[in-house]
Amino acid sequence: MARRPKKRSSKAGLPPGALIHIGERLAEEIKISVYHYDEFSLEEIDIKTLSECQQCMGRPAVTWVQLSGIHEVHILEELGTIFGLHPLTVEDILNTDQRPKLEDFGEYIYTVFKAFHNHADQNSEITSEQISIVLGPTFVLSFQEKESDLFKPVIERVRTGKGRLRKSGADYLAYSLIDTVVDNYFALLERLGEKIELVEESLAANPSTASLHAIQQLKREMIFLRKSIWPLRETIGSLERSESPLIQKSTGVFLKDVYDHTIQVIDTIETFRDMLSGMLDIYLSSISNRMNEIIKVLTIIATIFMPLTFMAGVYGMNFKYMPELEWPWGYFAVLALMAAVALSMMAYFKKKKWL
Amino acid sequence: MARRPKKRSSKAGLPPGALIHIGERLAEEIKISVYHYDEFSLEEIDIKTLSECQQCMGRPAVTWVQLSGIHEVHILEELGTIFGLHPLTVEDILNTDQRPKLEDFGEYIYTVFKAFHNHADQNSEITSEQISIVLGPTFVLSFQEKESDLFKPVIERVRTGKGRLRKSGADYLAYSLIDTVVDNYFALLERLGEKIELVEESLAANPSTASLHAIQQLKREMIFLRKSIWPLRETIGSLERSESPLIQKSTGVFLKDVYDHTIQVIDTIETFRDMLSGMLDIYLSSISNRMNEIIKVLTIIATIFMPLTFMAGVYGMNFKYMPELEWPWGYFAVLALMAAVALSMMAYFKKKKWL
Amino acid sequence: MARRPKKRSSKAGLPPGALIHIGERLAEEIKISVYHYDEFSLEEIDIKTLSECQQCMGRPAVTWVQLSGIHEVHILEELGTIFGLHPLTVEDILNTDQRPKLEDFGEYIYTVFKAFHNHADQNSEITSEQISIVLGPTFVLSFQEKESDLFKPVIERVRTGKGRLRKSGADYLAYSLIDTVVDNYFALLERLGEKIELVEESLAANPSTASLHAIQQLKREMIFLRKSIWPLRETIGSLERSESPLIQKSTGVFLKDVYDHTIQVIDTIETFRDMLSGMLDIYLSSISNRMNEIIKVLTIIATIFMPLTFMAGVYGMNFKYMPELEWPWGYFAVLALMAAVALSMMAYFKKKKWL
Amino acid sequence: MARRPKKRSSKAGLPPGALIHIGERLAEEIKISVYHYDEFSLEEIDIKTLSECQQCMGRPAVTWVQLSGIHEVHILEELGTIFGLHPLTVEDILNTDQRPKLEDFGEYIYTVFKAFHNHADQNSEITSEQISIVLGPTFVLSFQEKESDLFKPVIERVRTGKGRLRKSGADYLAYSLIDTVVDNYFALLERLGEKIELVEESLAANPSTASLHAIQQLKREMIFLRKSIWPLRETIGSLERSESPLIQKSTGVFLKDVYDHTIQVIDTIETFRDMLSGMLDIYLSSISNRMNEIIKVLTIIATIFMPLTFMAGVYGMNFKYMPELEWPWGYFAVLALMAAVALSMMAYFKKKKWL
Amino acid sequence: MARRPKKRSSKAGLPPGALIHIGERLAEEIKISVYHYDEFSLEEIDIKTLSECQQCMGRPAVTWVQLSGIHEVHILEELGTIFGLHPLTVEDILNTDQRPKLEDFGEYIYTVFKAFHNHADQNSEITSEQISIVLGPTFVLSFQEKESDLFKPVIERVRTGKGRLRKSGADYLAYSLIDTVVDNYFALLERLGEKIELVEESLAANPSTASLHAIQQLKREMIFLRKSIWPLRETIGSLERSESPLIQKSTGVFLKDVYDHTIQVIDTIETFRDMLSGMLDIYLSSISNRMNEIIKVLTIIATIFMPLTFMAGVYGMNFKYMPELEWPWGYFAVLALMAAVALSMMAYFKKKKWL
Repeated sequence: MARRPKKRSSKAGLPPGALIHIGERLAEEIKISVYHYDEFSLEEIDIKTLSECQQCMGRPAVTWVQLSGIHEVHILEELGTIFGLHPLTVEDILNTDQRPKLEDFGEYIYTVFKAFHNHADQNSEITSEQISIVLGPTFVLSFQEKESDLFKPVIERVRTGKGRLRKSGADYLAYSLIDTVVDNYFALLERLGEKIELVEESLAANPSTASLHAIQQLKREMIFLRKSIWPLRETIGSLERSESPLIQKSTGVFLKDVYDHTIQVIDTIETFRDMLSGMLDIYLSSISNRMNEIIKVLTIIATIFMPLTFMAGVYGMNFKYMPELEWPWGYFAVLALMAAVALSMMAYFKKKKWL
Repeated sequence: MARRPKKRSSKAGLPPGALIHIGERLAEEIKISVYHYDEFSLEEIDIKTLSECQQCMGRPAVTWVQLSGIHEVHILEELGTIFGLHPLTVEDILNTDQRPKLEDFGEYIYTVFKAFHNHADQNSEITSEQISIVLGPTFVLSFQEKESDLFKPVIERVRTGKGRLRKSGADYLAYSLIDTVVDNYFALLERLGEKIELVEESLAANPSTASLHAIQQLKREMIFLRKSIWPLRETIGSLERSESPLIQKSTGVFLKDVYDHTIQVIDTIETFRDMLSGMLDIYLSSISNRMNEIIKVLTIIATIFMPLTFMAGVYGMNFKYMPELEWPWGYFAVLALMAAVALSMMAYFKKKKWL
Repeated sequence: MARRPKKRSSKAGLPPGALIHIGERLAEEIKISVYHYDEFSLEEIDIKTLSECQQCMGRPAVTWVQLSGIHEVHILEELGTIFGLHPLTVEDILNTDQRPKLEDFGEYIYTVFKAFHNHADQNSEITSEQISIVLGPTFVLSFQEKESDLFKPVIERVRTGKGRLRKSGADYLAYSLIDTVVDNYFALLERLGEKIELVEESLAANPSTASLHAIQQLKREMIFLRKSIWPLRETIGSLERSESPLIQKSTGVFLKDVYDHTIQVIDTIETFRDMLSGMLDIYLSSISNRMNEIIKVLTIIATIFMPLTFMAGVYGMNFKYMPELEWPWGYFAVLALMAAVALSMMAYFKKKKWL
Repeated sequence: MARRPKKRSSKAGLPPGALIHIGERLAEEIKISVYHYDEFSLEEIDIKTLSECQQCMGRPAVTWVQLSGIHEVHILEELGTIFGLHPLTVEDILNTDQRPKLEDFGEYIYTVFKAFHNHADQNSEITSEQISIVLGPTFVLSFQEKESDLFKPVIERVRTGKGRLRKSGADYLAYSLIDTVVDNYFALLERLGEKIELVEESLAANPSTASLHAIQQLKREMIFLRKSIWPLRETIGSLERSESPLIQKSTGVFLKDVYDHTIQVIDTIETFRDMLSGMLDIYLSSISNRMNEIIKVLTIIATIFMPLTFMAGVYGMNFKYMPELEWPWGYFAVLALMAAVALSMMAYFKKKKWL
Repeated sequence: MARRPKKRSSKAGLPPGALIHIGERLAEEIKISVYHYDEFSLEEIDIKTLSECQQCMGRPAVTWVQLSGIHEVHILEELGTIFGLHPLTVEDILNTDQRPKLEDFGEYIYTVFKAFHNHADQNSEITSEQISIVLGPTFVLSFQEKESDLFKPVIERVRTGKGRLRKSGADYLAYSLIDTVVDNYFALLERLGEKIELVEESLAANPSTASLHAIQQLKREMIFLRKSIWPLRETIGSLERSESPLIQKSTGVFLKDVYDHTIQVIDTIETFRDMLSGMLDIYLSSISNRMNEIIKVLTIIATIFMPLTFMAGVYGMNFKYMPELEWPWGYFAVLALMAAVALSMMAYFKKKKWL
């Protein structure tokens, strides 16, 4: 969980547009897949060098360049030259510490946001990955930090030609990629919801410091998710309202749909936050209750035995003249008195509902 | 109480418009009732197959298709084809995890929101049901997750012809359905208000952990209601301000009315939330007070008996030369001294208002 | 203090515009007073049946119909017919559970808000009453739930002809009524301010559970007032900005004035809320302080007497060979040692500022 | 510190524009100073009766009427007549319980806000005074509740002719008065900042109930200041944006400047509020810490002496057959055992870092 | 860390535009460097008197006057005259207590904000410095409170001619200066993030009062940063949206970039605030937990030894007739009973999970 800008400061002093990869290197190798498709045909190539991509441009069909691994600055620079990207766009793609945003450069639209990975089987933290998408008139460039199955369903649809994807333009492809990432958020939230439920149950059973740390950990993850997803709402909203010729009218209704999903994600995060706050309250008051419980036990014991011990102490004094000591039934009378004191104390606690 | 998206993730990777029923299957069978009416006539049919509905369209009168149970994807698909719904609309109807929203598709308006069920006699949780309404020029389609009495009053008005309903168009019918659901919220809030009052009384009588859990449970229900109802306000607001030709001028004043009711519902929820916060404060401070009470008892007992036990201990020592032990009235003098110490301690506590 | 909709649910299922009185019946009888006035003349009649009011309309002068008690549905229905009110307006007048609002029906403006009663001599809760005002071209209808002195000053001004009232139109009369109610809020707030001060003093003197309940009670009243008055601000604001021909330019400056007063009322409520929060903090920390105090006493007593009792216990042992017991000055030496221990303990507490 | 409307309710029932002085009478006598000036000349008169002011109007130069003490209703009424003020303006000037606001009456602009007095040498509360300013085409009327040095610097500049004041119009004079009051806020905030620092130091040294009350007192003063200054921002903002012909273009940049200062004042108040919240947190947790400390001492003492006392008690029993009692070194063995127990307890506490 | 206006009150009573240096004098001497450059040439001079700068104006190339140290009022006054600055601008440059803001004077744009210094090797507080920038058609004036390396990278780029800087106009230079300062914020935040992590670790290891003070200190620094940086967002935003002819179209995209960075900085500050709040919660509940721990030890000890001591006390009584005392195995029976009581108590605590 990258909670704060890392190595961001290494850029201080460099001119804007200076290309430096910021973030951890998550992929071993850069992998570039190129898809050229229209309704009737599909060409799919894995390329090694960008010179192979020289014919990428100027095709009548849609071209999707999918790039995994962004640590090789020069490859991105070349790609930027081929597709005519502004240096600041290339800089932003390289900087994995971006806030979700959308920038309309006229000839292309650049958008960046986060995808999350949290494998169900691992008790690991959520890891995030930065996804950059560049939408041009007939091309889409997608940038991921590492190779993953994230866009597999889209690739599947490109290959099989099911649905509208192959019949639609580049904007619909860009939408599909965003939609896939947002759909992914739901899976993440479901897993977090299950975690919250587990912590809730452990809280009901036995509120321990471990519960507190789990709550705090979840709260922090919510802060992290919220920070990453909140601006996405505005981003997709401005994409939907955009009057760019790059986006066709018919895609608008789909963008509205993914916009609604984003709001739903944010709503769920807020609900989780409220639930976690409530759990914190329960934790804190259960701690108080337990302290009450402990002190109650102490008080009961002390209140019963202190008077008794005092009485025993009195008849343990060594005064010459203590008439009770001579009485044959004195000892038993004192024992009876002690029992009476103890019982009346206990009756008092019963009345006070401490027992 | 469905607190978070369930099975929503099962859609990940599917193309948009993919029709999957998301949510629990609440109804055994799908029930379809069709009402054709105008001011003078009413035709009411329960249909089994949608082929019977082929004549549903193209009638001069208003047609209301009421559908309970939405788990059969193919029926909804067919219906969508008959009434010309966008695939995304059908997808949204099937997905019971929607946030209240309104979408104007030009030829029809689609709106979705929640109804709540909470039977007074059961101590059960609130259950929510998703209501979808499609308003076309001469038809209204309403979708419920299960068969219920929710729209019974509207059906009654359709049958008896009382009020404006039969004299007005499809937009008034859609308004009546929304109004019925919002009216239902008031009943729910009254019941919640009674619950809050009960918890409040139990809190005044004896603040137990059960009270805390009841407060937290109510707080959570408020979060849930708030999340479900809050966006409805905006939805109805945009319906009221809508310039769609599907909504007649004369219906506007009624929509304003239901808009006001929604705000009132939200206001009440906020008031309940504030009341619950106040109750939590009272609970917490009553816990503190009780701890104070317990510690006070402990302190009083310890403060009285510790000095006395010490005195008894002193005269229990076995020194050869202890003059007091020889005094004939020594024992009684010590007893008197002990009584004096105990009484002065109690006077001190009286002064401190601990007794 | 009607904290939540009462019997509001009894309307569920009824068509909009269905006339049902919602709320408690506060007045025994409905009282209707009619005032016809212009700058030069005044006619004042108490009527029993509305047929007497048939001539109410169509007069050149201003007509004020003041109605106390709104439980008789048929009277309001008739009145609605005479003055041409929309059924929804009559429904709103009957429903005493309204949120302050303003509705411009073109021919008339309908506004509804709350007045509060809290007699200084009674320690009673605040009671609220719903005031509805209908402003037509030459008439004002005012509806109160019960007979009260609330509008007495306005009646006085109508009768004496002092000020602008008799010289101005119906809109100025409507303004005067609103102004009177808002002025009334100040009196209420002053009384609440005095209550807050009393609680504050009792908190400084002796923070008891009674103080806590008083604070919570006041907080709740603030929530109640806030909920009732907050929307009034917007209501009067929209009246001021209204371009309705029913409101003359010259009245605008007066509406601005009453708008400012409403903001001032809201400001004061917010200030009171902040003060009550501060008082709650003081209460809670004084509880903590007292617990500290109690535990300190316990600790001092225990810390002094436990070592002493132990020492007494040691010399109370029955070992055959215990040299100290034989020493003639042993007893006094032990007493001296005990005194030394006690004094050094006390010195330690003195140093720690616990004594 | 006038925390709530005082005697405001005495206006209830009076017609709007009714002139009543609301607030305490702070000045003995009303003092009226009149300044007529242009770039080249200055005439300064102290007048007793307003008849002397008949020539105040219609002068080509700027006229500044400075009035201290506003309790004499008839004087303000007369002044209002001379300068053509609306009755509501005069009413507002008399009512010292105003919220800062700006009203543009076309012929003149009326603005009202608060000045604060808090003498450094006194430990007294902050007192506030209401300042009303009326800006006409060639005149400025300023109203203060009492005679003070507040506007002395402006008078000085009028007299000496330094700066732009004498060369500019009435709007610049009005600006100068507002600027002087806002500058005054900085002095007040500096003094409050010093107070906060003192409390902070006393909190670090010894967190007592006195610290808590000081924090709460400061918090309350912040609420009071905030309530008084917050609306000023909007007031000056609307003055700056105003298109009134009474304000010249060249004055705009100065109004922007004083607007910035107001925001800075509000910022500082918010920062102080945050600091006070942090101090409250520190206070509360230091209380907790101290309780921990006390309980720790108690626990250590009890845990060491209870076992020892028990052991002494065992060998104080009077059983016939207790072999240890006969051993010659029994007593010393027990003493050694006791020492061992005590030492191991202390080692345990050392390990737990309680000692 | 200058937390509140210092000496700001010394301006009270002075006319606006009065030139007084407010703030500490951070530099020994004023240092003025002038850079004249275009794409092909660079002239760099350190000047002593401003008369040398008379030719600064009217050059075709870009002129950058970099001034460190602003305590000499007359130098700034002269500079203002040379470059035609409004007196209020000069006043604002001198007043180091400004809130970030932007003012467009038509002929030039004035902007002011804060830079922060926090050397990694020192455990010192953050110090802030006010940066003023004046952007004219062909010149940029930059004002710093002291000589520092802050703008070194920009000077480097001016000297080497790398990047766009030398090819672009004065607006790009101004942008570069702002960008450098914002880049600096990232370095600061990274250092603060490391501090937070350290405190977090020390909190997990051993939550001491030192941790609390560290948290509070960091919280305060966040308040301070937030107050300083928050308005910068709006400032850069309005620069970006500005339609001033001083800013070329091509610079817009770079301003958007620095705007995004500012939002990212603010986001990070908010995240840190949330993290610190969570840490405070953890601290407070760990204090509670520890108190629980201590009280538990006390209760266990007391609950075990009080009954035992009582039993020893009983057989220490001196009654003549106590049958048990005569039994030969009495002593051992009692010891066995005592052991049984102690063990059952411990079993009870084990069951309660206190041991």
